[in-house]
Amino acid sequence: MNIKELASLAGVSPTTVSLVLNKRDVKVAKETRERIERLAKEHHYRPSSLAVGLVTKKTRTVGLVIPDVGNLFFSEIAKNVEQELAKYGYGVVICNTNDRFESEQRMIDFLISRGVDGIILVLSADAIAGENERCVSHVEGIKIPIIALDRWVEGLACPHVSIDHRFGGELATRRLIDAGHRRIGCLTGPLNEFSAKKRKQGYVDALQKAGIPYDEELVVESNYTFLGGYEHAKELLGKDLSAVFACNDLMAYGLFRAAREMGKRIPEDISVIGFDDLTFSEMLEVPLTSVHQPIEGLCKSAVEKLLQRITSPQEQVLDEVIAPSVTERLSIKG
Amino acid sequence: MNIKELASLAGVSPTTVSLVLNKRDVKVAKETRERIERLAKEHHYRPSSLAVGLVTKKTRTVGLVIPDVGNLFFSEIAKNVEQELAKYGYGVVICNTNDRFESEQRMIDFLISRGVDGIILVLSADAIAGENERCVSHVEGIKIPIIALDRWVEGLACPHVSIDHRFGGELATRRLIDAGHRRIGCLTGPLNEFSAKKRKQGYVDALQKAGIPYDEELVVESNYTFLGGYEHAKELLGKDLSAVFACNDLMAYGLFRAAREMGKRIPEDISVIGFDDLTFSEMLEVPLTSVHQPIEGLCKSAVEKLLQRITSPQEQVLDEVIAPSVTERLSIKG
Repeated sequence: MNIKELASLAGVSPTTVSLVLNKRDVKVAKETRERIERLAKEHHYRPSSLAVGLVTKKTRTVGLVIPDVGNLFFSEIAKNVEQELAKYGYGVVICNTNDRFESEQRMIDFLISRGVDGIILVLSADAIAGENERCVSHVEGIKIPIIALDRWVEGLACPHVSIDHRFGGELATRRLIDAGHRRIGCLTGPLNEFSAKKRKQGYVDALQKAGIPYDEELVVESNYTFLGGYEHAKELLGKDLSAVFACNDLMAYGLFRAAREMGKRIPEDISVIGFDDLTFSEMLEVPLTSVHQPIEGLCKSAVEKLLQRITSPQEQVLDEVIAPSVTERLSIKG
Repeated sequence: MNIKELASLAGVSPTTVSLVLNKRDVKVAKETRERIERLAKEHHYRPSSLAVGLVTKKTRTVGLVIPDVGNLFFSEIAKNVEQELAKYGYGVVICNTNDRFESEQRMIDFLISRGVDGIILVLSADAIAGENERCVSHVEGIKIPIIALDRWVEGLACPHVSIDHRFGGELATRRLIDAGHRRIGCLTGPLNEFSAKKRKQGYVDALQKAGIPYDEELVVESNYTFLGGYEHAKELLGKDLSAVFACNDLMAYGLFRAAREMGKRIPEDISVIGFDDLTFSEMLEVPLTSVHQPIEGLCKSAVEKLLQRITSPQEQVLDEVIAPSVTERLSIKG
């Protein structure tokens, strides 16, 4: 049974059938509505969203564009966005960009041509590296509701919901200061990267507020990977310090290995705090104290803002920056 | 500019425009085809997949149904399926079931109503637990091409592509036997679960082939989690054994913690092999030797089989079972 056959059985137009079964608020007599619903049920008619989409111009599908579904942080985001959208009866199409600007453009074109109602976009590293203008003008060209999640750049033509990486960096460093440390190293991510830059700024903020002079000797730029963290920690741990803020957990794991090889114990000789609070951080030999990213709150807010833009396009939607917190474990002495 | 306007400009029907722009093999004069393409370009017309889908009945979109996008194994699957499909110009809609049979049914209905061309399904634990019939008849009712990935049950009405968990279990156990161990413990997953059952069978196979008597004292059922592994390892490590096959890496991590607390060194006192070869296994204090799941090959095969079913429905598609291998690290003595 297709929509035309059902419409002819019910004595109405296919459009009316589509609107009624998609529960759109249209002026159809209660009697007609009930007749259509009863017939659809009797004949096991399942409305095709493709047909529904053409009539209502809505598909109740949202696109989620992420840099790497194989990365725990982004797959957690995917899971949370999907669950949050499901509460409102929306489905999600997840697309992966591999952190490339070109893929990002291609995926967004793909989603728009699939008729999604809106997009939640985690910008690719490639898109935000260097040229803000390119990224800004690309987002400006997107004519459907869009929300930037996690990463953003100045001048972006859409609202963003992000974690306050700078405050997180400050929180981590302050935690070490509160434990009595003054010589605190910082193992940063790649400093052309959005969150890496912010987390390091937070480290500087905390030192400044505590009146501890900034010593660039104690800051080593790494690359957010386990092996990078391991290599750069060997350099950092040779210096005069009693604590390290590793700007993500993976690098902290690398630091653990370097410390072991150098005969330094954690936390007795070196206190460590990470950032991300990965599941694995509690499984380490010394469970890692880490800054927790509020992924659930982040996704909830992004979904709410996007649906607001879809359903009430005239209302203003503001940016939101969510503060992280520290998950206490055993890698800090004091 | 919509499809009707473009069609009227080009002097053809909207269907012709749709077919030409979707590069379908239709008999349209070369001249007309080029005129349509030129006009579409000039007027920045992007064909809506919804409209295209209604004409061609194909959306070039595949649904991927997975139990938990927040689980590394499944998010790796999602990434690989997406990349493999992209090579053929197909997009993917990823849906999460949270391992519930009900969600699985709802998601599959959702995907079919969205007009996907086919589905790659990783069955929910719930679907395969106990009642095969329910699961089999559900899959039988799906009228579009479908491939079962990873998990399957006897009698399933669609081809499956899976990892040979049983052989993997045998491989792991044989690796320990080859290192000279005879008293080998087994920390299993939940034995009502598909892969857990198979991996344990492989353990039994290897013992049998080596002429080592099976001792049920040395087999402890756990639940695939870190904490479960930790708790059950405390029980297991109190017994007379020199090696353990942990049926997944997470439980091996738990075993590492239990061993540390009991003053047992790895690998000096206890050799350990895991299963899954998670990224984190190389970051542990003692990097974990583990059975590697060939996710890439698994996804490549599933995508190829599904596309074959979509494009050549009359051809037969056979099941495929892919053998895993061992990634050597440092947790086995000998």
